[in-house]
Amino acid sequence: MNITDVYEPVRGGLAIVEDRLKLLAGTESESLNRLLDHVLDQGGKRLRPALTLLVGQSYDCELDLLIPMATAVELFHTATLVHDDTVDASSLRRGKPTINSMWGGARAVLFGDYLFALAAELAATTGNLRVVTLFAQTLRTVSASELTQSFRNFDLSQSRQRYYENIASKTASLFVLATESGAVLSRAPDDVVAACRDYGYNLGMAFQIVDDILDFVGAEADLGKPVGADLLHGVVTLPVILTIERNPGDLRLIRLFENKNESSVKAVLEMASDKSLISESYRIATEFCARARRCAEKLPHGLASKALIDLTEYVTARRS
Amino acid sequence: MNITDVYEPVRGGLAIVEDRLKLLAGTESESLNRLLDHVLDQGGKRLRPALTLLVGQSYDCELDLLIPMATAVELFHTATLVHDDTVDASSLRRGKPTINSMWGGARAVLFGDYLFALAAELAATTGNLRVVTLFAQTLRTVSASELTQSFRNFDLSQSRQRYYENIASKTASLFVLATESGAVLSRAPDDVVAACRDYGYNLGMAFQIVDDILDFVGAEADLGKPVGADLLHGVVTLPVILTIERNPGDLRLIRLFENKNESSVKAVLEMASDKSLISESYRIATEFCARARRCAEKLPHGLASKALIDLTEYVTARRS
Repeated sequence: MNITDVYEPVRGGLAIVEDRLKLLAGTESESLNRLLDHVLDQGGKRLRPALTLLVGQSYDCELDLLIPMATAVELFHTATLVHDDTVDASSLRRGKPTINSMWGGARAVLFGDYLFALAAELAATTGNLRVVTLFAQTLRTVSASELTQSFRNFDLSQSRQRYYENIASKTASLFVLATESGAVLSRAPDDVVAACRDYGYNLGMAFQIVDDILDFVGAEADLGKPVGADLLHGVVTLPVILTIERNPGDLRLIRLFENKNESSVKAVLEMASDKSLISESYRIATEFCARARRCAEKLPHGLASKALIDLTEYVTARRS
Repeated sequence: MNITDVYEPVRGGLAIVEDRLKLLAGTESESLNRLLDHVLDQGGKRLRPALTLLVGQSYDCELDLLIPMATAVELFHTATLVHDDTVDASSLRRGKPTINSMWGGARAVLFGDYLFALAAELAATTGNLRVVTLFAQTLRTVSASELTQSFRNFDLSQSRQRYYENIASKTASLFVLATESGAVLSRAPDDVVAACRDYGYNLGMAFQIVDDILDFVGAEADLGKPVGADLLHGVVTLPVILTIERNPGDLRLIRLFENKNESSVKAVLEMASDKSLISESYRIATEFCARARRCAEKLPHGLASKALIDLTEYVTARRS
């Protein structure tokens, strides 16, 4: 499944979002424009703005409202990536050097703040306080969760439930912002706003689970970053949790917890890459997708809602 | 002049802001609450929320609108301090260890984001899109300016004009947010909103110039941070610019630019601490204060506007 085909109903809107993003890199000082150019030219799937546009299209919502919100959602996402890479001292993102590796961590911090501000300003141009509030709440949820999680690195006692809560805050919340804001701006009925919320949540959960699976079994060339990066940072994801559930007390797990070094990470990486654990992880992701699909069916039937349904298949099929 | 006396007309409002800030530290995970406790318990002058309250009080604005905005302004300020300290790797702030020195730079980045989000959420509870937009614009101005400035460290060709533009963006903009939002929420007439804006700008300019002077002549115990910290980071402030204007081509300045080490910083520190340069810097700050005073006189006369006038004297008299 090709993502560009799925986006077909909002191709025009996405092209405008892309133009808006490119135009940003001409509005500031020369030095700042270079950073904007670097980060906005990295491509990426533009999945979140596509969600806002697809939901809005189901209700013929004005593009004047949808475009700034979709652009805001993408900038929000970009800002979190810039700060995440800084926090993790990552050197590669989408196969290109990160802002922190090119310009240093200090500038990456300020640049992330700048992107958050740009995003908030764009969200405010919708004139809709409900989406502005949702925007701020989402940023609080994402940062609070990542901060709290940073105190739990290499904590192998984390349950499946806590993992779900964590990815709900860190990833699914931004999908919810994308879909719910599209519905709110479209003045969709309350039950559809709720369905869009649930769709974003379930799609986001599946998306992150697949991301976590790919961190174990993906190809470095597809991912644009090293395999096993999460575990190396002590981040315990679904394949590791399933490994712990299946092998309680296994020495390799205890060693990881005690040593936190590359060889102990490698041993657990091998355990968690076990075929049946990966299938089980995919099965769980597919369950979330099925729930997302049922939510999408509550939208007015048409090309846009069909695309939202197709996306539930795309997230588990993707390889990067 | 005691700042507590100046705040007298809004003592009640400031106490509520203080309570709101303290209450925040009980709403999140245990680890996050510890960081909130640390940073919100550090005191500080609470000058920015006092400005919002004083402007609002001149118009009998509802406290239900003013309190969240004043709290938002203080949280915004706190967030910028957390990120600034992280960017500069500073270990002390107001005489206490910084977040980055206690919990590491990575967590300080996420924590600053969290504080920005909290602030934005509070600003949105006013239900006033104009102040929410102003909030986002201010964050963009502050971060863009600090980022651009980071490319100019140890650049001794900076003019007085560029220095003014820089401190206008980095400091005065937040004072403008504080005063203008108070006026907008009070539904003050347009000319008074403009006067409040100008008051915030001029007071903020004076405040930062005095801060920059104190970085040279202040006592470490009063400042809660090392003397000469700015220059050590390559930040060129008014006393240094006046030094350059007076001693063009001086070898000590050239050495600073070439070597950027502690002994070359110390040599320039001594030059810039020259009494007549410091008096000249104070004279410039006092000019900004006089302009701020004329703006404050355009507000309805009363205890609150009297306090705003008193503040124009406080900023040049303060020692920390």
